[in-house]
Amino acid sequence: MTTTSRTVAEICRAARDASALLASAGTTRKNQALAAMAKGLVDRTEWLMAENAKDMAAARVKGLSPAMLDRLALTDDRIRQMAAGIQEVIALPDPVGEIEKMGSRPNGLLVGKMRIPLGVIGIIYESRPNVTADAAALCVKSGNAVVLRGGSEAIHSNSAIAHVLRAALADAGFDMDAVAIIENTDRAAIDELLVQVETVDLIIPRGGEGLIRSVVEKSRIPVIKHYKGVCHSYVDEDADVAQAVAVCVNAKAQRPGVCNAMETLLVHERIAPLFLPAVAEAMRAAGVELRGCPETVRLLPDTAAATPEDWDTEYLDLILSVKIVPSMDEAMAHIRRHGSLHTEAILTQNHARAMRFIREVDASLVLVNASTRFNDGFQLGLGAEIGISTTKLHAFGPMGLSELTTTKFIAFGDGQIRN
Amino acid sequence: MTTTSRTVAEICRAARDASALLASAGTTRKNQALAAMAKGLVDRTEWLMAENAKDMAAARVKGLSPAMLDRLALTDDRIRQMAAGIQEVIALPDPVGEIEKMGSRPNGLLVGKMRIPLGVIGIIYESRPNVTADAAALCVKSGNAVVLRGGSEAIHSNSAIAHVLRAALADAGFDMDAVAIIENTDRAAIDELLVQVETVDLIIPRGGEGLIRSVVEKSRIPVIKHYKGVCHSYVDEDADVAQAVAVCVNAKAQRPGVCNAMETLLVHERIAPLFLPAVAEAMRAAGVELRGCPETVRLLPDTAAATPEDWDTEYLDLILSVKIVPSMDEAMAHIRRHGSLHTEAILTQNHARAMRFIREVDASLVLVNASTRFNDGFQLGLGAEIGISTTKLHAFGPMGLSELTTTKFIAFGDGQIRN
Repeated sequence: MTTTSRTVAEICRAARDASALLASAGTTRKNQALAAMAKGLVDRTEWLMAENAKDMAAARVKGLSPAMLDRLALTDDRIRQMAAGIQEVIALPDPVGEIEKMGSRPNGLLVGKMRIPLGVIGIIYESRPNVTADAAALCVKSGNAVVLRGGSEAIHSNSAIAHVLRAALADAGFDMDAVAIIENTDRAAIDELLVQVETVDLIIPRGGEGLIRSVVEKSRIPVIKHYKGVCHSYVDEDADVAQAVAVCVNAKAQRPGVCNAMETLLVHERIAPLFLPAVAEAMRAAGVELRGCPETVRLLPDTAAATPEDWDTEYLDLILSVKIVPSMDEAMAHIRRHGSLHTEAILTQNHARAMRFIREVDASLVLVNASTRFNDGFQLGLGAEIGISTTKLHAFGPMGLSELTTTKFIAFGDGQIRN
Repeated sequence: MTTTSRTVAEICRAARDASALLASAGTTRKNQALAAMAKGLVDRTEWLMAENAKDMAAARVKGLSPAMLDRLALTDDRIRQMAAGIQEVIALPDPVGEIEKMGSRPNGLLVGKMRIPLGVIGIIYESRPNVTADAAALCVKSGNAVVLRGGSEAIHSNSAIAHVLRAALADAGFDMDAVAIIENTDRAAIDELLVQVETVDLIIPRGGEGLIRSVVEKSRIPVIKHYKGVCHSYVDEDADVAQAVAVCVNAKAQRPGVCNAMETLLVHERIAPLFLPAVAEAMRAAGVELRGCPETVRLLPDTAAATPEDWDTEYLDLILSVKIVPSMDEAMAHIRRHGSLHTEAILTQNHARAMRFIREVDASLVLVNASTRFNDGFQLGLGAEIGISTTKLHAFGPMGLSELTTTKFIAFGDGQIRN
């Protein structure tokens, strides 16, 4: 644990200094480092499990729930999965050095944009220890140094994983400080990280809404954030009923505890008498509780009445609010008022309305005739995901390797001057 | 001045509400609004000049310098130039609705990224009143609402221009609140703007370093900023001397008061005995004062010695610091320490070093054998420029219409669900 005695500012400065070599390294060298990281995790499985046992013991004393304990636990199998995750990152194309839009200006200057790393990325997380390895691998592949700050409940596990990754990085000829970990578990250490404007380029918080709001409130460094997903599916009057039922049940019930699950179903009044009984039956078969607007309750008398709060609630559970609307305009107005810019879907066979919904609805993913559950970096083809952004600046939606980079302008001349 | 009585929060909320119509408008309709804005400015020339006269009178009482008075003045010709600037924006391609990277996923889901407006952009500026029209035109064309907050010295001019633009917008069938102006000239009004996180998506400050640092310090909204340009040209041992002299003189002296002018010249020691006397003669002929490192002073005895502060100074004047370096690595190390991520150039005929400089130097524009003065949205082919970003997130370098937009994911399915 070589970083323990350093201040947060010193850790970030060391990461900044280490970032230059990583930024200019070719793909082969970065992949060699990633392979060493994956191998290191597997080789040190016993030690990692021993360190994890300290966290597990402390968590039991604290009385953490079985679900929380399960999230925290490192097993032989989970460590192999972490290593396999790094192998998948090795297989992804390297965005760094890609040149876009190269073209000649009238004076002969050849101008293009070259993709480059952001520099140093701070990741603040409170979830499973595997985030330590996943985030480090994505940052290394995209040529960025990373400063990791995990939750206190996983401190021994996170430190041990980082220790292994850092040693592998050094073995591969890089400066180990390019993967740094803040082992100070005080909240004050986060506050200190959030003001390192000279050395850290981006902060990505991963965790509950409380953590994220607190990071946004205090950070002087740009933050890419994701508060919540209140996702809608709108079943248009021209929907294919059987298809819409299947897609909506998938959107709600396939994995209800995640941000891209549907929370509210909007149904055009003309299709409601046909569609609602069918979807209600399928939803109830999937264990979903419905909460309806007055018109929904009239058509489905067994349904509980929705309260005004329901329309703004991310249930993350097998609960669905249902509202009948007189038009697509009303559905889009409801989404504007209650949506969270995350994922919105329309179910329709009408081309004009599908295209208008795609154009006008403001969300990081807008779908036609498909489940909201597709808002995911792997599903959308990014190959990896470090998070989903619901703010529009820099990245909107799932963030893969490319979203951990930016572009600089490059220009090749032969003596051009300005007049 | 219809917005005077509203609070900043109300102005931003109205801009947010007005932004939806602008975001979904086609290019033709937006261009019609821009044409009405340009015509409105010309039609109301007399009134605009009368309002400007109030600012001019107040500025004379305050004792503003002749240069400042000149910047503030609106003439018949300058109003026509503002209108012509809007006509140029009409001629630019509309980035909104462009679809990138559309492709099929293995399950048949057709996934792409569609370019969309950011939403509401706050522009805080202290310069010439023409920024009011320029910024509004770029925001309208890119489908964004804008909240303008100009300096107190130009309040009557800015308000009058905004009044004309708003009336034109309404005539063209848009909500005039999509171009909003904050007429409260207290600093507190800026502070209030900077916390409107629910309604404003981006803040762009344009002005001196003091204004920008204060905005960054206080803003809870993402800021795209540009502090200063300490730009270097590195003359490699394999430079073409005559070409390097011409390019360096252009970089320094063609317009010394701007951010992309060269401030420091780095010269390889092997070419220094040949290059330095030649460039010194040309620089002195252009009125440039040189300040050199000890080795430079030895080669050019008439040169003043540079102090350590010189290497970090943005002169914005006919002054140039000169340093002799033993290698390109030393030149790049100097740029890392003293550069501002703005513009860096190498002069060389050596291909390998040119490519390494392009790859490894960290700046929003890196050039080979061309003047640093090319870091400009028009020169690099963006067609327009709302500012130059020296931070890497979202945009790095000159920002045109495309940089005022983002992308959302779109997906066309035929019933796809996740397993």
